[in-house]
Amino acid sequence: MNNFTYHNPVRIRFGKGAVASLAEELPADATILMVYGGGSIKKNGVYDRVMAVAKDRIAGEFGGIEPNPLYETCMKAVDAVGTAGANFLLAVGGGSVLDATKFIAAASKFDGGDPWRILSEGAEVASALPFGTILTLPATGSEMNGNSVISRRSTNEKLAFGSPRVLPVFSILDPETTYTLPPRQVTNGIVDAFVHVMEQYLTYPVGGYLQDRQAEAILLTLIDRAKAVKNDPNDYDTRAAIMWCATLALNGLIGCGVPGDWTTHAVGHELTALYGVDHAQSLAIVLPGVMRHQRDRKREKLLQYGERVWGIRATDEARRIDEAIARTEEFFRDTGCDTRLSDYGIPESAGRIVAERLEKRGVKSLGEHSAITPSHVAEILKLRA
Amino acid sequence: MNNFTYHNPVRIRFGKGAVASLAEELPADATILMVYGGGSIKKNGVYDRVMAVAKDRIAGEFGGIEPNPLYETCMKAVDAVGTAGANFLLAVGGGSVLDATKFIAAASKFDGGDPWRILSEGAEVASALPFGTILTLPATGSEMNGNSVISRRSTNEKLAFGSPRVLPVFSILDPETTYTLPPRQVTNGIVDAFVHVMEQYLTYPVGGYLQDRQAEAILLTLIDRAKAVKNDPNDYDTRAAIMWCATLALNGLIGCGVPGDWTTHAVGHELTALYGVDHAQSLAIVLPGVMRHQRDRKREKLLQYGERVWGIRATDEARRIDEAIARTEEFFRDTGCDTRLSDYGIPESAGRIVAERLEKRGVKSLGEHSAITPSHVAEILKLRA
Repeated sequence: MNNFTYHNPVRIRFGKGAVASLAEELPADATILMVYGGGSIKKNGVYDRVMAVAKDRIAGEFGGIEPNPLYETCMKAVDAVGTAGANFLLAVGGGSVLDATKFIAAASKFDGGDPWRILSEGAEVASALPFGTILTLPATGSEMNGNSVISRRSTNEKLAFGSPRVLPVFSILDPETTYTLPPRQVTNGIVDAFVHVMEQYLTYPVGGYLQDRQAEAILLTLIDRAKAVKNDPNDYDTRAAIMWCATLALNGLIGCGVPGDWTTHAVGHELTALYGVDHAQSLAIVLPGVMRHQRDRKREKLLQYGERVWGIRATDEARRIDEAIARTEEFFRDTGCDTRLSDYGIPESAGRIVAERLEKRGVKSLGEHSAITPSHVAEILKLRA
Repeated sequence: MNNFTYHNPVRIRFGKGAVASLAEELPADATILMVYGGGSIKKNGVYDRVMAVAKDRIAGEFGGIEPNPLYETCMKAVDAVGTAGANFLLAVGGGSVLDATKFIAAASKFDGGDPWRILSEGAEVASALPFGTILTLPATGSEMNGNSVISRRSTNEKLAFGSPRVLPVFSILDPETTYTLPPRQVTNGIVDAFVHVMEQYLTYPVGGYLQDRQAEAILLTLIDRAKAVKNDPNDYDTRAAIMWCATLALNGLIGCGVPGDWTTHAVGHELTALYGVDHAQSLAIVLPGVMRHQRDRKREKLLQYGERVWGIRATDEARRIDEAIARTEEFFRDTGCDTRLSDYGIPESAGRIVAERLEKRGVKSLGEHSAITPSHVAEILKLRA
């Protein structure tokens, strides 16, 4: 097992009616800018519930954060922070709203020039506005980590940053707020969480015996509950399990002391930036390609994954690996997410174009062995035509 | 799933050589009282490693914390805090040293009369000295929670308290410091962690799908590594897995949103207070009795436990439950821990005496249904003669 530091002070309030706990969670001196997305929170009642307990504290509202939130939009929100005189942000929505709020929190306090440098150059986030979140879409895990992904329209880029200074002070999760999500967003959330686990699990063995089983615990629960939520979308315990899975898939815990391979996310971000596919769709396209292309390097974990998660026990190793990859792709499709570039009308040239973009940004290699070069990425995407 | 709040801000530094990270973790203004046990840290080199990085900051030392730490000893340490002018405590040792330090931290700031009231009456811990820990014995999970168990010699009592104010600021865990532990302490740690998981798992289903699998992940890892550590006591990854299992068994995570049954601990504490058996030994005696006595109420979870943890798939339910209980007891014995009252020379009258003590303290019932009365406790211990 590798050495690690783990520190996650986010306070979680989870359950039916949890939005009401906002009153207890807000700091006494908070003057709030509330940040949200396209307005679904006004239809599902969450907006009203927030207002019921925090109306007097909310000095301003900033709606209209888009999926794959834009730098351009966030910078308008930074202005709104100033106009409202806000000293605390409240993100209400899904991962995009939360990620945007993290960037707004950091950009509002950034004194190193254009805040885009936080994303493009990894400029340090020396301070940030404190913020809390009310999550309405389980998927990204953003509610319990310090990561954020922001896109820039002018350059068609999608880049990530992370800092302990953008950990939420609190996150409120009420599974009942997810009942009204469109099926595509439920699917996307399950796929996103599943791939988050895989990127921390499917590498090579380092004796992370407990971490492996914890990762498998989330995968098994997601597989099981993906079926259940289709059969009964209003089953509370199923919605709650999916929501808690998505949080624990990326709160740092299962990644403690083990290597990670974030190739699928890195390549997926390019596909989203270039072709507009949903984040989860991009992951469902790329992951089976990474598994196939890296089957030798990931051999031991592929076999373990096949056996423990899918119950695959054939004698022939190559067949077991084939089946593990096939079952993964099948799971994405059964859950409602297509897995091929052609399913989304993305041209075969995508591989070459993505490889060139990565090269241009100075990316030399990806993966747990730093062995996946941009030209390998082109090969991976060729497998996904 | 039940509603829950989860908040665990303890900073974990885990791995080889982690003691050196103490220099980074200590607050700049810390004047330290160092608290430790019987002196094993002087033999295994941990004391020297602490001194190497923190000598100038340590204003005083308090050694001699015993297993099942005594109120009487802790109160002497409270005097030592004053003598040293300490504003920060550093616990170096196992769960007993950590638990003692929590009580010392709370008692040093207690202004409600005799600090024993924190244990005997649940008096509020309004403030406490901050402290960090260096753990050398994986078992209790005290390094990542706000719980503590203290004994009082004058009254033969062993009582628990908990407060977020006695969460460690940081905990440092170096698996290599556990190589020199006597086998009995290694065994005890595995059994203690195993039972911590069982007390949060073996109740009744509430749709905690992920929590169940997370609990099973720890049980499976402990079972697997208990064998491995016998075969190769110096295997780093095995030691690391056992250490991390013990922490995650009782850091609050697997208990989120699910009921708990702490009967085994409550009864075990009485056996330790009365007959001096080790904490883990008391648990290994009591748990199989609780499983057998409560087999109807715990039916569904016993079947799930048998299948997922032990691979028991016989058709007859009663047989499957019998086997699940037998395998648990066998595991304790194989790991090196006896499981019967008679193994420890504890008389058959123990059941009656423990029941009377619980009644005298006003305990009406225990368990996830509040259905285990003191007279049931006597029946449970009768099963363990």
